Amino acid sequence: MSGQEIEKLVKLIAKLPSLGTRSARRITLQLLKKRESLLLPLIQSLTDVAENIKTCEICGNYDTTSPCSICASAERDQSTICVVQDVSDLWAMERVSFFKGKYHVLGGVLSALDGITAEDLNIDSLEQRISHGGITELILALPATVDGQITTHYLLSRFKKYNLKMTTLAQGIPMGGELEYMDEGTIQLALNSRKEL
Amino acid sequence: MSGQEIEKLVKLIAKLPSLGTRSARRITLQLLKKRESLLLPLIQSLTDVAENIKTCEICGNYDTTSPCSICASAERDQSTICVVQDVSDLWAMERVSFFKGKYHVLGGVLSALDGITAEDLNIDSLEQRISHGGITELILALPATVDGQITTHYLLSRFKKYNLKMTTLAQGIPMGGELEYMDEGTIQLALNSRKEL
Repeated sequence: MSGQEIEKLVKLIAKLPSLGTRSARRITLQLLKKRESLLLPLIQSLTDVAENIKTCEICGNYDTTSPCSICASAERDQSTICVVQDVSDLWAMERVSFFKGKYHVLGGVLSALDGITAEDLNIDSLEQRISHGGITELILALPATVDGQITTHYLLSRFKKYNLKMTTLAQGIPMGGELEYMDEGTIQLALNSRKEL
Repeated sequence: MSGQEIEKLVKLIAKLPSLGTRSARRITLQLLKKRESLLLPLIQSLTDVAENIKTCEICGNYDTTSPCSICASAERDQSTICVVQDVSDLWAMERVSFFKGKYHVLGGVLSALDGITAEDLNIDSLEQRISHGGITELILALPATVDGQITTHYLLSRFKKYNLKMTTLAQGIPMGGELEYMDEGTIQLALNSRKEL
């Protein structure tokens, strides 16, 4: 392969999640072939994002403004905060456009293995928001993993004193899910939380 | 998802080969998180490529110079041209660093289905290189598909008049390949071209 610039670009693209050297080479070639329709627009778009996108000082979302459009919106329920692990979870929630409250992005979950403590997460800023008052419900939408559950329990005990309603997402059989293909943990959870009809 | 710039970037990244909307979102998030170590270097690298990489006027390779470093090199065998379908094939050959001749990138193969004729490929420029003289061997390293084989035969008959040695890559069992897992076409080919020991 000739051209140091190309080698460098391939290496950088290979660093992106879900890509390896092989796909990075294919992408680089495609960019070189479609200079006008792909490479130049991509540079422009990346530059726009780099110049304009900020991290929201309140909730941790990415937007062109800080506070972000969700935090700044007067139409959204000010009294409910949905706590999520990552901005990707916030995006997933927003795609459903069912939840009309505010968010708080923790930036991770507690993990003894990875050495992630409460100080590494945006928990202090969440407590500030709560202590300012006006919040009545905290939805803890953290992942259904061991670390996620530990973080949920940590937040539960830490914010107990504020007398908030604290909820978590329902767990059970997903929509369209067939019992036959569910793991035992999910079936047990769904049985435990069975609803009366 | 908030921020039109982010939406636009996700859509552009999703257009790249081997990527869909889901992986494009993950990549965009990663870029936003690693602004200094990933986003800004990527913009710089893409800009470098856009500004500096040209298509070689002789062989069709991508390089910072035209003629490219391979075409310009005096150390490489001037008398042998390896004809490949795409720049990615040229890169694959160069990674082996066994072939020491020159290249010619056709930019595709003949295809009745896709309406690709000889005029759509870089065949005229290849004929010019041959007719200038000095070329003794043409290695037709086109894909082992029906269209690739048709293109090989087209080139064979078109360049017959120049009295060149024209060769093609050997076909057979790949290195480390086990008979059990080979398709019947490959086994038949390998049998047909069996070598005396």
